[in-house]
Amino acid sequence: MLRRTLTQVIRRMSSAANVEAAVAAPTAAPQAAPKKEKKAVKYELKVPKGTKDWADKDMVVREAIFDTLAKVFKRHGAVTIDTPVFELREILAGKYGEDSKLIYNLEDQGGELTSLRYDLTVPFARFVAQNGIQAIKRYHIAKVYRRDQPAMTKGRMREFYQCDFDVAGVYPTMIPDAECLAIAVEGLTSLGITNFTIKLNHRKILDGIFQVCGVKEEDVRKVSSAVDKLDKAPWADVKKEMCVEKGQPEEVADKIGEYVQHKGSVKDMLEWLEGDAALMANESAKTGIEEMRTALPFMESFGITNYLSFDMSLARGLDYYTGIIYEAVTEASAPPTEEQKAALKAAAEKDGKKKKKSKDDDDNSENVGVGSILAGGRYDNLVGMFANNSKKGNIPCVGVSFGVERLFSLIKSRPGLMEKVRPAATQVYVMSMGGGPEYTGFLAERMAVTHKLWEAGIEAEYMYKTKPKYPQQFTAAEKAGCPFAVILGQDEYPQGLVKIKELGLGEESDRGTDVKIEDLAQILKEKIANKTSSVGEVQKLLKDFTL
Amino acid sequence: MLRRTLTQVIRRMSSAANVEAAVAAPTAAPQAAPKKEKKAVKYELKVPKGTKDWADKDMVVREAIFDTLAKVFKRHGAVTIDTPVFELREILAGKYGEDSKLIYNLEDQGGELTSLRYDLTVPFARFVAQNGIQAIKRYHIAKVYRRDQPAMTKGRMREFYQCDFDVAGVYPTMIPDAECLAIAVEGLTSLGITNFTIKLNHRKILDGIFQVCGVKEEDVRKVSSAVDKLDKAPWADVKKEMCVEKGQPEEVADKIGEYVQHKGSVKDMLEWLEGDAALMANESAKTGIEEMRTALPFMESFGITNYLSFDMSLARGLDYYTGIIYEAVTEASAPPTEEQKAALKAAAEKDGKKKKKSKDDDDNSENVGVGSILAGGRYDNLVGMFANNSKKGNIPCVGVSFGVERLFSLIKSRPGLMEKVRPAATQVYVMSMGGGPEYTGFLAERMAVTHKLWEAGIEAEYMYKTKPKYPQQFTAAEKAGCPFAVILGQDEYPQGLVKIKELGLGEESDRGTDVKIEDLAQILKEKIANKTSSVGEVQKLLKDFTL
Repeated sequence: MLRRTLTQVIRRMSSAANVEAAVAAPTAAPQAAPKKEKKAVKYELKVPKGTKDWADKDMVVREAIFDTLAKVFKRHGAVTIDTPVFELREILAGKYGEDSKLIYNLEDQGGELTSLRYDLTVPFARFVAQNGIQAIKRYHIAKVYRRDQPAMTKGRMREFYQCDFDVAGVYPTMIPDAECLAIAVEGLTSLGITNFTIKLNHRKILDGIFQVCGVKEEDVRKVSSAVDKLDKAPWADVKKEMCVEKGQPEEVADKIGEYVQHKGSVKDMLEWLEGDAALMANESAKTGIEEMRTALPFMESFGITNYLSFDMSLARGLDYYTGIIYEAVTEASAPPTEEQKAALKAAAEKDGKKKKKSKDDDDNSENVGVGSILAGGRYDNLVGMFANNSKKGNIPCVGVSFGVERLFSLIKSRPGLMEKVRPAATQVYVMSMGGGPEYTGFLAERMAVTHKLWEAGIEAEYMYKTKPKYPQQFTAAEKAGCPFAVILGQDEYPQGLVKIKELGLGEESDRGTDVKIEDLAQILKEKIANKTSSVGEVQKLLKDFTL
Repeated sequence: MLRRTLTQVIRRMSSAANVEAAVAAPTAAPQAAPKKEKKAVKYELKVPKGTKDWADKDMVVREAIFDTLAKVFKRHGAVTIDTPVFELREILAGKYGEDSKLIYNLEDQGGELTSLRYDLTVPFARFVAQNGIQAIKRYHIAKVYRRDQPAMTKGRMREFYQCDFDVAGVYPTMIPDAECLAIAVEGLTSLGITNFTIKLNHRKILDGIFQVCGVKEEDVRKVSSAVDKLDKAPWADVKKEMCVEKGQPEEVADKIGEYVQHKGSVKDMLEWLEGDAALMANESAKTGIEEMRTALPFMESFGITNYLSFDMSLARGLDYYTGIIYEAVTEASAPPTEEQKAALKAAAEKDGKKKKKSKDDDDNSENVGVGSILAGGRYDNLVGMFANNSKKGNIPCVGVSFGVERLFSLIKSRPGLMEKVRPAATQVYVMSMGGGPEYTGFLAERMAVTHKLWEAGIEAEYMYKTKPKYPQQFTAAEKAGCPFAVILGQDEYPQGLVKIKELGLGEESDRGTDVKIEDLAQILKEKIANKTSSVGEVQKLLKDFTL
């Protein structure tokens, strides 16, 4: 609600001639002085850089994605929490290294220093530590903030959604880890995404491999980041980077190459790893391999092994994670091939619209796909940063984060989907039909009938006009994609009858059926139930338009 | 997801002896130096002042409130939008008068100057103007920010939710206005609130009354704010304020008193107003009265007249609104009586805990009830502040805002409700039973059975233990309020059988029924559907525990 003071201003403005002077021209170019205005406050009507308004069909699809994922999380017994959008600056301090410069600070207006949250994981860890929580399965879908250079083409925004599921607590090896993978599969398939692969690896195995290959401890991080590029570059390039840029001896690089180019089913890869005596003699690698062996029957129980690829080149977040790591990719999320890039370029040139290159654009964006659509892993030391330095204080965690903004882009691009999405949920349009001098337009009557439908839980609308013409109402209903019309006929309504008519049938138009007003809600409820699924129109569409 | 840099820090911390030094003691008092720590970063583990974490049952109830209201809005054909949490500072500038000092600014870190949104209405007006929208029914449930002095006892926070429904567009008189009132009634009754009254008035009628009574135009605002106090103070006090503080002649005050102490049904009040020749001769009053007369049949069609009280003392937001205004109150939201206050005080003293008076506390909070639980009205000039000064640019609006934080407090206080609310939605707990040396604990088997239930859309959990004891699992299930258990018996499971057992029956414990594993999901689905309603467990609870 607006406070009174707001309209003191409005009143002042609208009551006098200075209205013109105080409003901005919404369509004017940023710096162009609007013509009519004298003392114009010059600003453009827009949202801050890197943010956007969500509305219309996009909003509906996004809500369906969030609802679908929340339902999956709840199915697994998860609770949700909601933390403040800003945290005390000290809570975030020292958590993001170099990226700390991307944190949005709130102005120091006296009192505490605060910053907008950078992710949902640090607030989660703060919440767990602050409340002395020993065990929790929680999900959180909310906005986070980064003062990054926005690159809209890549979907990199300053305000964007994260969607995290995490399990905190001390449990036997790999039990919650396997459930996170099950949730990853369920989440994606629930969204109609089926052609994905979840790459798996284990940080302790990777650590062991680097040790066995003779990488010095201080070099592990940079070698690991080179390995992580194997999904985008051939081994020769990665090897070159290791030897030239990262100063590794060629024989070390070659040994690493023998390991990290391997991938396959969890079962096959485990046999291969367990057959490697050097690796099994390394304590770290052995622990990691044993953990994956423990997890295999769990993965089988959850029926997810077909989606998994145990990929020794996956190194993501190596410094961050302490155990299993994973990342899901789809064909659609892979970077474009050289041919695709050439085709895109040709199409753009044919288009004749040589888009002026803006500084804000990510120069490299055309070379990158949507990237991973989901990622996660085990991180056992984060809560400990906040808690007392006791065994009790440090609660181990494992989690999975859905790349909801990327998933939105993927889903939105499904051919035919967006045309079927309706912004509003209206199922019934209540209209009047009649003419001549006695015709009143039945406004109060349309309201009363619509009210009956609302009471029965049916989404219904009527035209906000006193005496609307029938074709006008019909067009509005069809435009809104309303499946049913209820028609109040000039002669029939006074006899207690209304007509139900199915819309959107084109040629085979439904002639309609007269029903008693008192039966209307019940009959419509059944018709709607037969027509649309109970899981929600849009959620059903996501499944129907499977990727 | 956390970026790698975060764990560079974590790794650094957990690998060395400086862990102790870098973490804060979560339970330590704000300024007390933690015992064990040497170079401790001294900060308390907490959220910023005036903000809170939402979790557990509170979170579930809040979600149920939001879902319920969203469903009502959607039923009326509304769409929802999501605007950024921060806006360009210029957008908010000059909109809140005195209260502008309460706006949270983001730090100037180069680039645009931005501020956290103060409400949802100005961003809505910006959205409508920016996109040249001519007509929209939208709802928006989201957080807003005010650097106010927090008063937790009054529920005044710095971060809190607003829940707004607004109709923008040019329509015949009072049609969308009446629908907003219908939504107000539906929203509150859907939440199980029935003992409420919606006070109505019309700004043009009030303006007319003040003119007829001889109030000078420059005095209208202050006289109006005195009138607005009639719900908390007797007429004598209000009259005194008018004459002494606001300098009105006694005969003017007396004339006003004759009008503003009237309230009643819309029908009766209209007859009374229409019978007042002086008022009907005033252009403003006449217009207002005619609009209310137009609205009466709409209110009757929507079946809401019983909830309405046409109350001439309602003046809220007079400066802001341009037409009908309304505000809903319940008995529970009224300020406490002197007796109640005395009882509260006595109880507090008996408690022996004389709370130290903090500067942050609102000194007057104990004298105020929850206040109005919903408010709104017509505001025709706001979009025009952003749009071009053209007829097309200025889109008239009418809206209603649910005081969701107040509604939450009211609902939470219903006796017996919170005990019935479960934080998680789990319907089935899958457990194992057995003993002796052959007993494995059936971990992978429990996973496989639970997975079957997930696939069928059933909320199910199992214990994250390798070999849990049966009573331990049973206790966990009952504690979670799970209605059903599925038991994998040591002898029965290998034969393809599991037992379904209804929980929470106390003495009349269900002995359980053996079913084939392949039939399990279907049987459970039916049992659950019979036990819980399709509208959602918590939403149903809100209706059951009617206020």
